[in-house]
Amino acid sequence: MISMSDTAPHRISPFPHRHLLGIEGLQPQDILGLLDRAEEAVEVSRQVEKRKSVLSGRTQINLFFEASTRTQSSFELAGKRLGADVMNMAVSQSSVKKGETLIDTAATLNAMHPDLLVVRHHAAGAVHLLARKVGCSVVNAGDGPHEHPTQALLDALTIRRHKGKIARLTVAICGDIAHSRVARSNIILLNALGARVRVIAPSTLLPGGIDKMGVEVFRDMREGLRDADIVMMLRLQRERMNGAFIPSVREYYRYYGLDQEKLGYARDDALVMHPGPMNRGVEIDPAIADGPQSLIREQVEMGVAVRMAVLEALAAHLPNHH
Amino acid sequence: MISMSDTAPHRISPFPHRHLLGIEGLQPQDILGLLDRAEEAVEVSRQVEKRKSVLSGRTQINLFFEASTRTQSSFELAGKRLGADVMNMAVSQSSVKKGETLIDTAATLNAMHPDLLVVRHHAAGAVHLLARKVGCSVVNAGDGPHEHPTQALLDALTIRRHKGKIARLTVAICGDIAHSRVARSNIILLNALGARVRVIAPSTLLPGGIDKMGVEVFRDMREGLRDADIVMMLRLQRERMNGAFIPSVREYYRYYGLDQEKLGYARDDALVMHPGPMNRGVEIDPAIADGPQSLIREQVEMGVAVRMAVLEALAAHLPNHH
Amino acid sequence: MISMSDTAPHRISPFPHRHLLGIEGLQPQDILGLLDRAEEAVEVSRQVEKRKSVLSGRTQINLFFEASTRTQSSFELAGKRLGADVMNMAVSQSSVKKGETLIDTAATLNAMHPDLLVVRHHAAGAVHLLARKVGCSVVNAGDGPHEHPTQALLDALTIRRHKGKIARLTVAICGDIAHSRVARSNIILLNALGARVRVIAPSTLLPGGIDKMGVEVFRDMREGLRDADIVMMLRLQRERMNGAFIPSVREYYRYYGLDQEKLGYARDDALVMHPGPMNRGVEIDPAIADGPQSLIREQVEMGVAVRMAVLEALAAHLPNHH
Repeated sequence: MISMSDTAPHRISPFPHRHLLGIEGLQPQDILGLLDRAEEAVEVSRQVEKRKSVLSGRTQINLFFEASTRTQSSFELAGKRLGADVMNMAVSQSSVKKGETLIDTAATLNAMHPDLLVVRHHAAGAVHLLARKVGCSVVNAGDGPHEHPTQALLDALTIRRHKGKIARLTVAICGDIAHSRVARSNIILLNALGARVRVIAPSTLLPGGIDKMGVEVFRDMREGLRDADIVMMLRLQRERMNGAFIPSVREYYRYYGLDQEKLGYARDDALVMHPGPMNRGVEIDPAIADGPQSLIREQVEMGVAVRMAVLEALAAHLPNHH
Repeated sequence: MISMSDTAPHRISPFPHRHLLGIEGLQPQDILGLLDRAEEAVEVSRQVEKRKSVLSGRTQINLFFEASTRTQSSFELAGKRLGADVMNMAVSQSSVKKGETLIDTAATLNAMHPDLLVVRHHAAGAVHLLARKVGCSVVNAGDGPHEHPTQALLDALTIRRHKGKIARLTVAICGDIAHSRVARSNIILLNALGARVRVIAPSTLLPGGIDKMGVEVFRDMREGLRDADIVMMLRLQRERMNGAFIPSVREYYRYYGLDQEKLGYARDDALVMHPGPMNRGVEIDPAIADGPQSLIREQVEMGVAVRMAVLEALAAHLPNHH
Repeated sequence: MISMSDTAPHRISPFPHRHLLGIEGLQPQDILGLLDRAEEAVEVSRQVEKRKSVLSGRTQINLFFEASTRTQSSFELAGKRLGADVMNMAVSQSSVKKGETLIDTAATLNAMHPDLLVVRHHAAGAVHLLARKVGCSVVNAGDGPHEHPTQALLDALTIRRHKGKIARLTVAICGDIAHSRVARSNIILLNALGARVRVIAPSTLLPGGIDKMGVEVFRDMREGLRDADIVMMLRLQRERMNGAFIPSVREYYRYYGLDQEKLGYARDDALVMHPGPMNRGVEIDPAIADGPQSLIREQVEMGVAVRMAVLEALAAHLPNHH
């Protein structure tokens, strides 16, 4: 086992940004640097004593305006394994009615001298706004339908560990593209690293402007999956579909659920991903989710590693700003 | 004061199981080994600096599908006093509707490389199912009406510290036996260590098969308490009595509440216990709960110690499994 | 930067009380000692590695019967930055219906050997009751309309850092005096340190007995603010006004909201404070809240420092009581 602390300072170039607000705007070498750093973080979590001291005495605040047990836990463990003092703050939407209040929350937290602020918010752009108001580093843990950069990074890490590269792979992203920050961050990242990106969805679940995002668009799963290296399924975000056409679950599964027959159109060595939590039998056949082509569990493990890498990269970059 | 770390490695034989899912299946020497280890843990919490490093860098996740401030706090303090990184995850029942989802939750957590998973669940058997799906050690913190092994261990520790032994003591367990995992785990443990166990309850609050559990059954408190060394009251679990006969509180107290008159039938040096939280005036006269024969506060202290002992015993047994 | 640990033991006299239940009963030198200690704590939070080891291995429990993200976070960070194991316990009011249960909760917690218990409760006097039942130090984090001592201390610290003193300053406390523990604690503290204290409120928002508290009472903002050094606005506690006259927000702002015109009556170098969270446009013009005379953000920073000082002062005073 390789100790992260032995090797990190020598090999990995510093991350040039103070915040991680999205994949948009990152250079390929920024992304690759985070992935390299995450490879080393994987080893830390696999050790018996899975704690480094690189963030010792630093304060990490997880500020979640939307509940997300899974993502918050991943960031909490990442911070604790780096030695940070981690504080969770759940903020109910009811207490946040005005933009002003978000700013007041930000200013209040900032006055407590956090080093790292991990933020999930239901509105696109809220995290950017907040980042402009604080003196610490901000990580976007999902802002409405906009971006979820650590999800895209963990997906890329998982793919690279199995395929050895991202460039020139054919990646098919399937399902509810319109409401998915996961899809958006992945499209940007995969394009930046030279993959061929396809999206597959019914017209009602495609966002406006998808034709300008550098992807091939398919309405038919079999066509879209043909010869794909990676099949990336999305969660059906029914809670976000205010007033939109909501397909019946049965009909959705028939046309867009990943079953063995449809998966047969992809390459024989195609790998299957899902950001979780899964709606089994809606987006994906449970047998595929648990089968040999599935990377779904490994994505969770890579999630902790990528978040450790991001927190460490930002902390290294922190000025002695106080 | 004796430091736990100085003495534990020399005296106490290793716990032979990877999980603590119940008292059932434990050998007397396993139980006694945990009690001996807990005796040393008592001293740690009585020191000014009440923290060991035995679980330093280990990850403990408290996964509670049922809220329990008291038990969760006890496990949280136990883990923190051993130096672990402790993460609490409260899972509302609404988000857990299918058995599949429990497996997905387990698999997700497992991918985050916890070392110790402390689980409370409303369904008997859920904790066993979960233990089969994860690579880490699992502690049952209460699974429906089935088992609550650390409660039985802390009760045994409390008794042994006052009576010097468990064997040949007469222990009367009184009240809502049918819905009580506390009763069930205690009956198994006390029998394993050679106590004479009685249960006292109205027929409607006795579980099926009670006559095969190696206990004497009484419907009358005075008869059942006669010459008892230990009077163990149970919480009236009205929230579990779906459709069953629910006695009125006044009537219940009259026949099965512990008052001075009924306690007079037990031995003069009888000791009174309750797992908490108490319904004062329902199961027990407040004057007895706060009186000289009560061990109720000490049970709470022993709870932290027993949980420290269990966590440490399982961690010592953990393979370098990652 | 001055390290707190280098200097604290030499300069600051010990705090003579086991608990901090209120400002009432403290001597001026007790208050000044805490402020001096807090000055040093300010530096700790401004360092990159913002963690001391003075409470290493100590257990701090935050027991909040009323939700308060802001105050609880401040105490949590304060404890963690001193190296304590901090455990948050949120207790819903529904589970606390009888005074007995508060005692049981206290006794249960006490049995877990905490060193420091930080308590917020909706009833005046609850914290005092609790303090009598436990063996550890108790900090009042707000008890109904009674006291909120750490708020008064952080306000005093903030004032002293800007004005160099408290004595002989004219401090106008404005708004909902009747329902404000912040006002009550501040009045006692500011009087103890020799300030001239005014309160400004409509008759309906003045508490009984205000004329015996050593303050000048004003119903008119312009009169009350005349030549004030410090303008301390209060939050309109509409949730506490059971059955009382509730002014319309528009009317309240017209007569008692702090706008530029009214602030013009105070001294040119007057400073503006608010304990937060603010109702912008109700108690205060947002432009003043964010303007050059506002100390509102600094109050938050001083909050963490004052709580560190209090926790450390009490811990130094803890007997080896276990």
